[in-house]
Amino acid sequence: MLEKLKQDVYEANMALPKHGLVVFTWGNVSGVDREKELVVIKPSGVDYDELSPENMVVVDFDGNLVEGDLKPSSDTATHIELYKNFKDIGGVVHTHSPWAVSFAQAGVDLPAAGTTHADYFYGDIPVTRAMKQAEIETEYEKETGSVIVETFKERNIEPNQIPGVLVNDHGPFTWGTDPANAVYNSVVLEQVAQMTYHGMQLKGESVRMDQTLLDKHYLRKHGENAYYGQ
Amino acid sequence: MLEKLKQDVYEANMALPKHGLVVFTWGNVSGVDREKELVVIKPSGVDYDELSPENMVVVDFDGNLVEGDLKPSSDTATHIELYKNFKDIGGVVHTHSPWAVSFAQAGVDLPAAGTTHADYFYGDIPVTRAMKQAEIETEYEKETGSVIVETFKERNIEPNQIPGVLVNDHGPFTWGTDPANAVYNSVVLEQVAQMTYHGMQLKGESVRMDQTLLDKHYLRKHGENAYYGQ
Amino acid sequence: MLEKLKQDVYEANMALPKHGLVVFTWGNVSGVDREKELVVIKPSGVDYDELSPENMVVVDFDGNLVEGDLKPSSDTATHIELYKNFKDIGGVVHTHSPWAVSFAQAGVDLPAAGTTHADYFYGDIPVTRAMKQAEIETEYEKETGSVIVETFKERNIEPNQIPGVLVNDHGPFTWGTDPANAVYNSVVLEQVAQMTYHGMQLKGESVRMDQTLLDKHYLRKHGENAYYGQ
Amino acid sequence: MLEKLKQDVYEANMALPKHGLVVFTWGNVSGVDREKELVVIKPSGVDYDELSPENMVVVDFDGNLVEGDLKPSSDTATHIELYKNFKDIGGVVHTHSPWAVSFAQAGVDLPAAGTTHADYFYGDIPVTRAMKQAEIETEYEKETGSVIVETFKERNIEPNQIPGVLVNDHGPFTWGTDPANAVYNSVVLEQVAQMTYHGMQLKGESVRMDQTLLDKHYLRKHGENAYYGQ
Repeated sequence: MLEKLKQDVYEANMALPKHGLVVFTWGNVSGVDREKELVVIKPSGVDYDELSPENMVVVDFDGNLVEGDLKPSSDTATHIELYKNFKDIGGVVHTHSPWAVSFAQAGVDLPAAGTTHADYFYGDIPVTRAMKQAEIETEYEKETGSVIVETFKERNIEPNQIPGVLVNDHGPFTWGTDPANAVYNSVVLEQVAQMTYHGMQLKGESVRMDQTLLDKHYLRKHGENAYYGQ
Repeated sequence: MLEKLKQDVYEANMALPKHGLVVFTWGNVSGVDREKELVVIKPSGVDYDELSPENMVVVDFDGNLVEGDLKPSSDTATHIELYKNFKDIGGVVHTHSPWAVSFAQAGVDLPAAGTTHADYFYGDIPVTRAMKQAEIETEYEKETGSVIVETFKERNIEPNQIPGVLVNDHGPFTWGTDPANAVYNSVVLEQVAQMTYHGMQLKGESVRMDQTLLDKHYLRKHGENAYYGQ
Repeated sequence: MLEKLKQDVYEANMALPKHGLVVFTWGNVSGVDREKELVVIKPSGVDYDELSPENMVVVDFDGNLVEGDLKPSSDTATHIELYKNFKDIGGVVHTHSPWAVSFAQAGVDLPAAGTTHADYFYGDIPVTRAMKQAEIETEYEKETGSVIVETFKERNIEPNQIPGVLVNDHGPFTWGTDPANAVYNSVVLEQVAQMTYHGMQLKGESVRMDQTLLDKHYLRKHGENAYYGQ
Repeated sequence: MLEKLKQDVYEANMALPKHGLVVFTWGNVSGVDREKELVVIKPSGVDYDELSPENMVVVDFDGNLVEGDLKPSSDTATHIELYKNFKDIGGVVHTHSPWAVSFAQAGVDLPAAGTTHADYFYGDIPVTRAMKQAEIETEYEKETGSVIVETFKERNIEPNQIPGVLVNDHGPFTWGTDPANAVYNSVVLEQVAQMTYHGMQLKGESVRMDQTLLDKHYLRKHGENAYYGQ
């Protein structure tokens, strides 16, 4: 079942080490079938060079195993929470890519500081609040998803326009229209984290860009008036 | 038409990923035929491994498509503006290389801090002023070129002596005698941005070098008294 | 003798350059046979591409050569001291990996700043005190091991829970259940040193994570209630 | 003539890009025949992949071309000055490796901050004073050598014990017993510059190591009591 999606999720997972975003097994990509409400995700703890489209795992929106010989990624509950709340997204990625993690660990929002950022993220990439003891000690992975959703609601951020987040003291999650697009956004996030870190060392938080330029770059690539390719 | 120039522009584009200056399609190189007033440039949004000399795009100085099945790079209007105003240049490069972008995003000129810089750039590499709302909202890419030209005029910089610029909150453009030379200057800019960033963290803005040493290094490689190779 | 262990130690040594943890011969891995009280270790000063399972060196717990045509690593006495005092460990690694060395040279503990760290190290990774003149001038390599052991005792750290240390003005040692696991912990240490360095530049020492989150991440992967894989 | 030395100098030059110390042609290695007072050096401006033992250039101690179809490296006069004044050295390397250049551009001595440094350099690696106008405008490359020699004399540094220097606002020169050893020292210098830069950001100049530890590490690898290999 879901052979096309399994292939897409497999390829998106394989793109993580190719782009230098993971060491060992520190990352996972999933994709969703919205009609069937099924999620295809990387199996837990399996090395990238042992992955195949066939060993991708299928779970339903309650996290029940639907197909697969292996356990789904331990982050599965976070992925599901995002699919349930962010209705348009088709893929989710989690990594521990080092520049993004540095901001997550510092608890510092990644400011929109230039056009590389603005081409894909329509504003600052937020850090979630610290999780509460009860959240950590109970359904931790599900609550990780909930705190992401809360962040976007409370700060009035549209998840389609800011397709990523920094989970406090943890690391980045990104999403996209499909698994490959979610990986693309992970690469962008890591790149802009690197660029903006150095800019902040040179100039501090005032590195944030002008709103008109942010509008221009985001909107020339997204929405009905988009016209751009490089 | 312009087969030799297409080959040169193709090879110069392929040199960008080879030198680690681009991810995805975030960069483009063009070359100019001064006699015919035609520009050959990378097609828009095409992956580097799908490029060939044949799919390079030819446009005239008004940006009209002259030859090619694909759209020219969205940055074409910026390239053209540079060719029109900087009369001696034969190639233009735009990238989002991370160290150069860090300075561009911080809005900090890249000071001439040592001989690596001085061998190719005869002074600080300027950051353009922030673009105005009207410039951003109308002919943005053309105006990006205009603000580069304005920077060089107002600051009395000779574009042949400082073959590159940092566009505010955006990233680097470089140029050169031909497309390959423009790429060479992009590599130099990225290298010196990295070196000088760290020097500035150690010592602050006073990292700027002595004028006599700058003269020596630049002039031993450029102009009539040049004698250097490494 | 010890053919399986020699193979394991050989493979673990070869993993060091593969993970970018060493230049030249600046690193070594050993493994222990607890029953026989023998240590298998990299020969001294031999390039990684000349290593083989056969040229691994066997020494006893007094450092006497038991088997091998080459000299054992000059750090052998440090390894032995760790095996003697940390009774559960099966492998030891020493490298000069640059991010870990930066903290060691600064004499700054590597704070537990996020879940990447917490998944493998249950708290800050300590720096040892400066060694005393008498320690340096006599049995220096053995004393290096002793000062590591002292650090863990005095600061009440369980070596199985913090499987690594930063030797003051020197560099990292890590250990693990076997040689491969010790190498894994070296990779983690280098990754978190990089991430946390940048987070500290953004936010200072207050980068240290919440204890509940540290408990959660460490304990979901270690001990009887472990359930995690990525 | 000098076929063995040409082969050695060729191989040492090829090791520079292999160790990531150069881009383009920004580096050169030479070797000396002390008996004949002849220097073999990389030809000027030639790409590394076009080098061969045959196109190495031979010059005498006055810089006269003795053998070779190509011009010797423009830095030849600096190399010769070092050979004339540092009587024991057999090879010289110049690069623009980025971490070493950062210190050179900042004009900051690279402090001996840990054992990686102490294993090969017996103390801080000095930055030369700024060159005077007359030195720059006349025999610049020769004077670059002279200011290195002056630095070692005035600061009472033994060039065999500190086999490298940072030329102010320029970059590193290293030397060694032969061309390969000089390259080795270039790699060490770049590594320790990276490590120590980050340590200095964490802790400032007080990163300098204890003298007893410096003695131990340097002397266990150099001089009559040496016993070390890793």
